[in-house]
Amino acid sequence: MITVLAGGVGAARLLRGLVQVIDPASITAVVNTGDDTVLHGLSISPDLDTVTYTLSGRSDDERGWGLAGESWTVMDQLATLGGETWFRLGDRDLATHLYRTQRLYEGARLSEVTGELAQRFGVHVTLLPMSDDPVRTRLTLADGTEVGFQEYFVFLAHSVPVRAVAFEGAGTARPGPGVLEALREAERVVICPSNPVVSIAPILAVPGVRQAVADRRADTVVVSPLVGGAALKGPADRLLREMGHGASSEGIARFYADLAATMVIDVSDEADSAMVEATGVRCVVAPTVMANATRAAALAKVVLDDR
Amino acid sequence: MITVLAGGVGAARLLRGLVQVIDPASITAVVNTGDDTVLHGLSISPDLDTVTYTLSGRSDDERGWGLAGESWTVMDQLATLGGETWFRLGDRDLATHLYRTQRLYEGARLSEVTGELAQRFGVHVTLLPMSDDPVRTRLTLADGTEVGFQEYFVFLAHSVPVRAVAFEGAGTARPGPGVLEALREAERVVICPSNPVVSIAPILAVPGVRQAVADRRADTVVVSPLVGGAALKGPADRLLREMGHGASSEGIARFYADLAATMVIDVSDEADSAMVEATGVRCVVAPTVMANATRAAALAKVVLDDR
Repeated sequence: MITVLAGGVGAARLLRGLVQVIDPASITAVVNTGDDTVLHGLSISPDLDTVTYTLSGRSDDERGWGLAGESWTVMDQLATLGGETWFRLGDRDLATHLYRTQRLYEGARLSEVTGELAQRFGVHVTLLPMSDDPVRTRLTLADGTEVGFQEYFVFLAHSVPVRAVAFEGAGTARPGPGVLEALREAERVVICPSNPVVSIAPILAVPGVRQAVADRRADTVVVSPLVGGAALKGPADRLLREMGHGASSEGIARFYADLAATMVIDVSDEADSAMVEATGVRCVVAPTVMANATRAAALAKVVLDDR
Repeated sequence: MITVLAGGVGAARLLRGLVQVIDPASITAVVNTGDDTVLHGLSISPDLDTVTYTLSGRSDDERGWGLAGESWTVMDQLATLGGETWFRLGDRDLATHLYRTQRLYEGARLSEVTGELAQRFGVHVTLLPMSDDPVRTRLTLADGTEVGFQEYFVFLAHSVPVRAVAFEGAGTARPGPGVLEALREAERVVICPSNPVVSIAPILAVPGVRQAVADRRADTVVVSPLVGGAALKGPADRLLREMGHGASSEGIARFYADLAATMVIDVSDEADSAMVEATGVRCVVAPTVMANATRAAALAKVVLDDR
């Protein structure tokens, strides 16, 4: 049994590697829901959907989000009505949000709905929202404006300076059903190459989760999201700098030092090895760019220490 | 200026006739919102949409609801997810509901949103929801079960006996902005050939509206929804019987006797003329089946007493 802390695309790709190497049914992914939002009245869980779609083999890997073979009839029509279309929701993707919203309205918990959707998409990894309670990542921009995660990430294309990040609701959120157990019982805990500041930190902000990971430090491995000192995609490097952690292997190592005994860095960052080890974290150097399924599987083996 | 009390399809067709005969900008339609519902988290106003789509020339007249040239990608995908699909929402139609839901979430009133959508669809008739406050038509079935209007109308295909009809929220609802003024100032008030029991009655149940129509009785004309003593479509005849009004021109006349001085009945019901007049309502006989735009315009002229 292994348990994975997961954000969006980076996590989904590592999971796609892991399911090639070990039985999917032995994997539990605890997924960030800080990015969740309500748009047009619909409950949207972007990271859960990215992981579900990717593991189902139905994600659009070119575009980097959503379903392959998607159509855009609803959004195109919404645009003619003058509606908000900056958050593009494909026709098939919308069905996921309609399903989730209806089930939540009927009183189902997000964890139940997540399980139902995973089953319908043929996903055998156990997907757990970090919490059934709403936690919302909020960013204070340099100019003092406060925005939700999707406004920052999609609408502003993460191209504005950030002063602070907060996880609204995290203080009173309870870990999702099975989350603490999955961390306690796993042979290995994997922190995915997701954005530490806005994808992994919200999971750790749910009371009890950080301690549960810290308790498993010896068996926890983190994959650095940096390649050549930069984020492959998205604002991880920028946010690490803005939050004062430093956009470097050393910064990542310090960020996770109390949680992970081992860190995997990309071959392009091999020179950082000694600095990482100096923080008390064992450093493993391997190719971390998961350009295809074969490379993802190879990285999964590294993570599982199974080369 | 004329003001029309409107339900769904029958009203939309008469309005399509009226806009051929007089300036659309001189027409105000007060539309039933008792059929409104929330599905998948989306705020749906079926009668407002039917009127909007029909007046825009974009309704699917074959099917009798929704937009012409519609596609069903979202519903088809929702079906594969095991979601609720008994209320069919086309892809383009969904954009309307996304728009409305988002605007209501932002704090806009239904009347504002209705105006925005009418403008986007190129509709020049003033469309007013009967109320900005939620009023929900609820039906108690013969077996005691209580259901919402859409459950009765769509899910149960209005094929079950009804014991009682109630308009939840009507007691405290306020007439929509402009509704009472439109009734007061109109040269003529028209009650459309909509279902009296579940399309017109909810409008009259909003405090102040029934009195406002009664005050204009001399200038109010109602078009009977019955043709040959039966509803062309839908459960009007059945519900009239079940509620004890009688499915006949006389039943309709009595239903509206305190509100309308004139009633138009179909040529097929010509024999009912004397019975209608006996209730104190002037009876006009004319073809009321609006099979096409020409016939709708001809009926509009009758209604406007402009033959």
